[in-house]
Amino acid sequence: MQIVIIGSGNVAYHITKAFVFNKIPLVQIFGRNEKELSKISEELNIPFSSEKLEDADLYIICVSDNSVEEISKLISKKNCLVAHTSGSLPKEILVGEYRKSSFYPLQTFSKSKELEYKKIPFFIETENEEDKKILFEIASKVSENVMESTHEKRKYIHLTAVFACNFVNHLFSRAKEISDSQEIPFDYFLPLIDETVQKIHEIEPKSAQTGPAVRNDKRVLELHEQLLKDESLEIYKVMNHSIQKMYEL
Amino acid sequence: MQIVIIGSGNVAYHITKAFVFNKIPLVQIFGRNEKELSKISEELNIPFSSEKLEDADLYIICVSDNSVEEISKLISKKNCLVAHTSGSLPKEILVGEYRKSSFYPLQTFSKSKELEYKKIPFFIETENEEDKKILFEIASKVSENVMESTHEKRKYIHLTAVFACNFVNHLFSRAKEISDSQEIPFDYFLPLIDETVQKIHEIEPKSAQTGPAVRNDKRVLELHEQLLKDESLEIYKVMNHSIQKMYEL
Repeated sequence: MQIVIIGSGNVAYHITKAFVFNKIPLVQIFGRNEKELSKISEELNIPFSSEKLEDADLYIICVSDNSVEEISKLISKKNCLVAHTSGSLPKEILVGEYRKSSFYPLQTFSKSKELEYKKIPFFIETENEEDKKILFEIASKVSENVMESTHEKRKYIHLTAVFACNFVNHLFSRAKEISDSQEIPFDYFLPLIDETVQKIHEIEPKSAQTGPAVRNDKRVLELHEQLLKDESLEIYKVMNHSIQKMYEL
Repeated sequence: MQIVIIGSGNVAYHITKAFVFNKIPLVQIFGRNEKELSKISEELNIPFSSEKLEDADLYIICVSDNSVEEISKLISKKNCLVAHTSGSLPKEILVGEYRKSSFYPLQTFSKSKELEYKKIPFFIETENEEDKKILFEIASKVSENVMESTHEKRKYIHLTAVFACNFVNHLFSRAKEISDSQEIPFDYFLPLIDETVQKIHEIEPKSAQTGPAVRNDKRVLELHEQLLKDESLEIYKVMNHSIQKMYEL
């Protein structure tokens, strides 16, 4: 099986790396950004091109959602399998006479952060059983956690991930902005943050809720509002409102 | 040194447990909720009372913020040290002729979740050097991470913790609500959540941001808004707005 990875961003980098580490042969990484491609190519010892797409049996498109359709048109081969890695796009976004599929890794990828690939859930959607078998076999070399998912379900998986990961990380950014403003080292908060996450491995998040909003401590809520402004104040109000709604306070 | 813990909630339970585990002798746990007190008393083998406060050198008040003042009036002894454990109250909230102090553990406490006490940062504020020495010595038996903090600074530490812990946990609750609605096991998201937190041990949260808002992916943002309603939709809008403001998108 000849495989080409398309893209040079965070997902492309980590998928390529995960494949190399698990001895899944790659014939090429292809994309538009030659500088990024050459870095990945050099680190992982895979040929790259920004001009000529190699012939392959499987193309995995790892580019941002709004480029998937356009990039997919570059694949003129007919008898091959093409997968995109988007959480929200249908496999039908792919334009070509090949077999279409989705290969969605549920993780947050940054080039500068190493990852344990074995634990990443992969969600797979294909046109037929044979393609499903192909993608399951490949994903299972990378991860212990490979599943099927329809497009409908995948949209909700992605949406849940936005809350549980992207928004959580943004709260860390806003939290750090507050502690930075008072010259309080953000490191102080790491044990608390670790415990916040440890907790939900054992307790339902709804039962783990602590803090002034769930205690309905109006004095503290008012005090905090006086310390905040702009976006952080908006977040503060909306989150407290949502907490109090959830617990019917 | 004779020490009494006042309270029977999450903080009182864990402070008592941390003291017992580190062989800091306690003469009593005191509070209003006899049922909870008797459970803690039985588990940790410390006498309890809801009626007669024992004589002690140090009283640590671990009750919710709006009860601290009232409870502090029960301590009629003059030559003793009293500490509260609130993140937002000044030590002057304590009403009595004793020496006043603050003993603030930066952590999220739930009775049903065990904790590694050694890593909890403790922030201490006292009226004089001698009391500071007393509280530092005690806290240092529990934790490797004991510091001084003014009331002004402590307010911001607490506020940062609300963002980094309380709000983060609420995002997990709302995330789980979404995945539950589609019968997607929340366990799927634990590797992603773990990685989200692992990341900020190594990278600044601002550099670790991923997701549709920071990519300014309008199609996905609109799609997600259609899948959401009520409080989750409000959170979605405010968080994306805040992300886009932070990255000037």
